[in-house]
Amino acid sequence: MNATTPVTVLGLGLMGRALAEKFLREGHATTVWNRTAARAEPLVAEGAELAGSVADAVAASPLVVVCVLDYDAVHALLDPVGDALDGRVLVNLTSGTSEGAREMAEWAAGHGATYLDGAILSDPDGVGTADAVILYSGPRAAFDAHEPVLKLLGGATTHLGEDHGLASLHDVAVLGLMWGVLNSFLQGAAVLGAAGVTASAFAPLATTSIKMVADWVNGYAEQVDKGEYPAPDATLNTHLASMNHLVHESESLGVNAEFPRFVKALAERSVADGHGADGYAAMIEIFRKPSATRE
Amino acid sequence: MNATTPVTVLGLGLMGRALAEKFLREGHATTVWNRTAARAEPLVAEGAELAGSVADAVAASPLVVVCVLDYDAVHALLDPVGDALDGRVLVNLTSGTSEGAREMAEWAAGHGATYLDGAILSDPDGVGTADAVILYSGPRAAFDAHEPVLKLLGGATTHLGEDHGLASLHDVAVLGLMWGVLNSFLQGAAVLGAAGVTASAFAPLATTSIKMVADWVNGYAEQVDKGEYPAPDATLNTHLASMNHLVHESESLGVNAEFPRFVKALAERSVADGHGADGYAAMIEIFRKPSATRE
Ligand SMILES: NC(=O)c1ccc[n+]([C@@H]2O[C@H](COP(=O)([O-])OP(=O)(O)OC[C@H]3O[C@@H](n4cnc5c(N)ncnc54)[C@H](OP(=O)(O)O)[C@@H]3O)[C@@H](O)[C@H]2O)c1
Ligand SMILES: NC(=O)c1ccc[n+]([C@@H]2O[C@H](COP(=O)([O-])OP(=O)(O)OC[C@H]3O[C@@H](n4cnc5c(N)ncnc54)[C@H](OP(=O)(O)O)[C@@H]3O)[C@@H](O)[C@H]2O)c1
Repeated sequence: MNATTPVTVLGLGLMGRALAEKFLREGHATTVWNRTAARAEPLVAEGAELAGSVADAVAASPLVVVCVLDYDAVHALLDPVGDALDGRVLVNLTSGTSEGAREMAEWAAGHGATYLDGAILSDPDGVGTADAVILYSGPRAAFDAHEPVLKLLGGATTHLGEDHGLASLHDVAVLGLMWGVLNSFLQGAAVLGAAGVTASAFAPLATTSIKMVADWVNGYAEQVDKGEYPAPDATLNTHLASMNHLVHESESLGVNAEFPRFVKALAERSVADGHGADGYAAMIEIFRKPSATRE
Repeated sequence: MNATTPVTVLGLGLMGRALAEKFLREGHATTVWNRTAARAEPLVAEGAELAGSVADAVAASPLVVVCVLDYDAVHALLDPVGDALDGRVLVNLTSGTSEGAREMAEWAAGHGATYLDGAILSDPDGVGTADAVILYSGPRAAFDAHEPVLKLLGGATTHLGEDHGLASLHDVAVLGLMWGVLNSFLQGAAVLGAAGVTASAFAPLATTSIKMVADWVNGYAEQVDKGEYPAPDATLNTHLASMNHLVHESESLGVNAEFPRFVKALAERSVADGHGADGYAAMIEIFRKPSATRE
């Protein structure tokens, strides 16, 4: 397969449109389909072929990319046309679970299709840039065959392994990082906002600080893997004292203190387990423990 | 005051030692004191003067830096020797609350001292580097007079304003970011670990992803300040679907699912408030609401 492989894109939401647009602009014959056909209009104006049905869309290309809301939507789309996938490569960029990805791989195999599961770690604007990270898992050979085309969508495209579940697992782990950053930014913005500092005034310091912590992750990871948590930097006891301050500031400024209290409660458990003089990586033991209750 | 101002450092824990070492290496006459005097030995070997008492230590320099466990420790140290501070500049780099900083400023003023409150956003290793961020609040004139000396401790030293509480407020907001990043990294490491991926294998992707999100903060901040939360990227509904996946993966791999559930519960409240089609910045309204309960 070369850089002019015809491609089909199923699903033209915020993300699907960005994918189809990139293929089009790179000169691929691009067939599109969306449940709400009207959303295809701007792409058709740029030269995409709008298929009249999912089956027609699948039939149009050897490489079929699907990116819809969730796996239920993927099944709703594809289950009725399974056999049309025979001999094709199905690339699913819809967010889901590792379980869902492995099931989908079996389903695809049952219909003679090769399946690659993928996860886009970028917003639609970032699609097609050198920095955009897209993770794939599934058969290495299929990835290698289509790598040049897939790489158009993100310069930092990576194949994680043959286990179809790996892309989804890494995806949620990374999304968790995103929510961790954004929630704590919003907590800080709420606290500072109550003291008269705008979120925009806080943002540059926040950005610098987040990047600083990003550079510590590797060191913490080594400690996690070794199961040894020395604290050449700050001990959990020191962290806990500061967590109390964040709780206190949040409460006394009258903003939501739940997030700081939750963070503090986790650290308190680690300290109660005897890790007060250890570094933050010791907290991995709390995160590894199965929760007491399920939802 | 110039770059050879004699300096006193009270408190020689992990951080205090790093501060004293930097002053020494930059050629300042450096007087030190620590409750446990033995911890001063390496510094004395490098040329520091070990004071026999806090009062002697304070008397030795016009610029007195204190960095101990918490404000209670600061008071335990300084309350008995308040008048020795008359005419001196007291720089408190101990982590605390805005309230504590404002009280300390009053206390210092009552003893004829000028007070600067500071917050070190760096680990001890980073002290003295160009990247180290140290935040100050309190009288601008005192900061300006000692800026060259204070800047030795961190190239990114900044004065935030006259309100003594500002350094502590920014400090906890930034520490919150750190805990947000580290907790979500550890959650991801726990999930991936249960699936056979080491924390070190996850770390490079985590670092890249954290930095990517760091670059989004400015845009979210603008939305927060405007009170408008359009979603050109992902909607809260899309986030919520992925949050469910992280909960599910954590549960089915048998690791702690509390953190993902907590994050999801916050987003659900925002969606219930009608923000499902908005972007993540809409969550600020959840973070701004006073919590239902206090500790
Ligand atoms: N947006 C991002 O920043 C981002 C980043 C990384 C990953 N993702 C993932 O990419 C996927 C798509 O996200 P998005 O932002 O494009 O979402 P979106 O803008 O909400 O679009 C959802 C798409 O799914 C389709 N759809 C929903 N239910 C369907 C069903 N039952 N049958 C057929 N089609 C159905 C929609 O069709 P209609 O137009 O007919 O409603 C639309 O094309 C999601 O899994 C998301 O997690 C998104
Ligand atoms: N370490 C970091 O990465 C970091 C980063 C930013 C800010 N900070 C802040 O810097 C401050 C010091 O942290 P650290 O890491 O240096 O902590 P540390 O290594 O635990 O040292 C604590 C220091 O406080 C002294 N101390 C405690 N209670 C005292 C009391 N009642 N009277 C007199 N001295 C007392 C200790 O004296 P002894 O030696 O006698 O016990 C020691 O010098 C904290 O507020 C921390 O939040 C630390």
